[in-house]
Amino acid sequence: MGRAQSLDRLMQCLRRLPGIGPKSAERLAYHLLRVPDRDALALARAIEDAVRSTKTCSACFNLDEEDPCRVCRDPDRDQGTILVVEDPRDLGPLEGTGYRGLFHVLQGRLSSVEGIGPDDLTIGALERRLDGGTVREVCVATNPDLEGEATAKFVADRLRARVAVTRLARGLPAGSTLGQVSSSILTDAVEGRRPL
Amino acid sequence: MGRAQSLDRLMQCLRRLPGIGPKSAERLAYHLLRVPDRDALALARAIEDAVRSTKTCSACFNLDEEDPCRVCRDPDRDQGTILVVEDPRDLGPLEGTGYRGLFHVLQGRLSSVEGIGPDDLTIGALERRLDGGTVREVCVATNPDLEGEATAKFVADRLRARVAVTRLARGLPAGSTLGQVSSSILTDAVEGRRPL
Repeated sequence: MGRAQSLDRLMQCLRRLPGIGPKSAERLAYHLLRVPDRDALALARAIEDAVRSTKTCSACFNLDEEDPCRVCRDPDRDQGTILVVEDPRDLGPLEGTGYRGLFHVLQGRLSSVEGIGPDDLTIGALERRLDGGTVREVCVATNPDLEGEATAKFVADRLRARVAVTRLARGLPAGSTLGQVSSSILTDAVEGRRPL
Repeated sequence: MGRAQSLDRLMQCLRRLPGIGPKSAERLAYHLLRVPDRDALALARAIEDAVRSTKTCSACFNLDEEDPCRVCRDPDRDQGTILVVEDPRDLGPLEGTGYRGLFHVLQGRLSSVEGIGPDDLTIGALERRLDGGTVREVCVATNPDLEGEATAKFVADRLRARVAVTRLARGLPAGSTLGQVSSSILTDAVEGRRPL
């Protein structure tokens, strides 16, 4: 019989999204045709609006509707500290901690498997941000996994001569129990022990 | 800090899709902003195209770009048999079996939990399709679960006086082993045993 062409095309587009397999793409496509037109078209318009109105900040590579982004534009923030993250999604949770310095988005992490090298990240731009002399500390907040660690080490090696380089603390996650956490977590906790 | 508004709106729209939680919506939204604009806009346009160009067939409630749909328009199909399904997605796999009769999409199934009653389905339209006298057999192909069964029974009770009502065979799934299948499958297989 063949399916309506436009429906097939919609499924193909949905299938390109991360985590969306053929079955999910089919379910989503039929869902979009079942809901009121208004709701499906709202999604189409939201995609267009977001694509057209978000920019990558030329200073820190955060996503925002203006360049420089609202973090970089804010004169009340501590201009002396930069938190280096892999992904713009990491900014929200870190803001939630009360941190009020600047950010720098690497746009990924080093990965030999995926063929991502230093030139694919925004490390050069981060180095140039140190030229003004305002930045005192760069805190590397990559993910605490193998590739995140390698990236952190690489960034630290590149910047250490020019600025104080720190990283986020590692140890027992709040609310955990000693018997449940992995041995790497315990090792971090013992190595990083602090005066009480 | 707050996020770019258009990005927040996009996440809200994505979150309304079935099976997409807040974390997936965030991942998808950032993905759409990371890929080339062209690719993200292709999805927006595919949604618009599909919404604008697909219609619900006024005869069988299948989705297609024309009404009546390509199944109902095809004069070579057996006009005497109607396979009744819950969802337009069921047509493809059933076509794959070589079936060349007509279909009827109920647009759901009876569900007291979800508050879906007979009037929410297209049973009335199915009854009207019998008026011409061409239809000899209605085969109910709802899902073999509790709600699908209840729906099948309801449809059969409504149509039995006017037309032969059948349902899809139930029994051992091809490729299974007796020791692995559930007792309900085995019960179906024994009850439905056929001459060899």
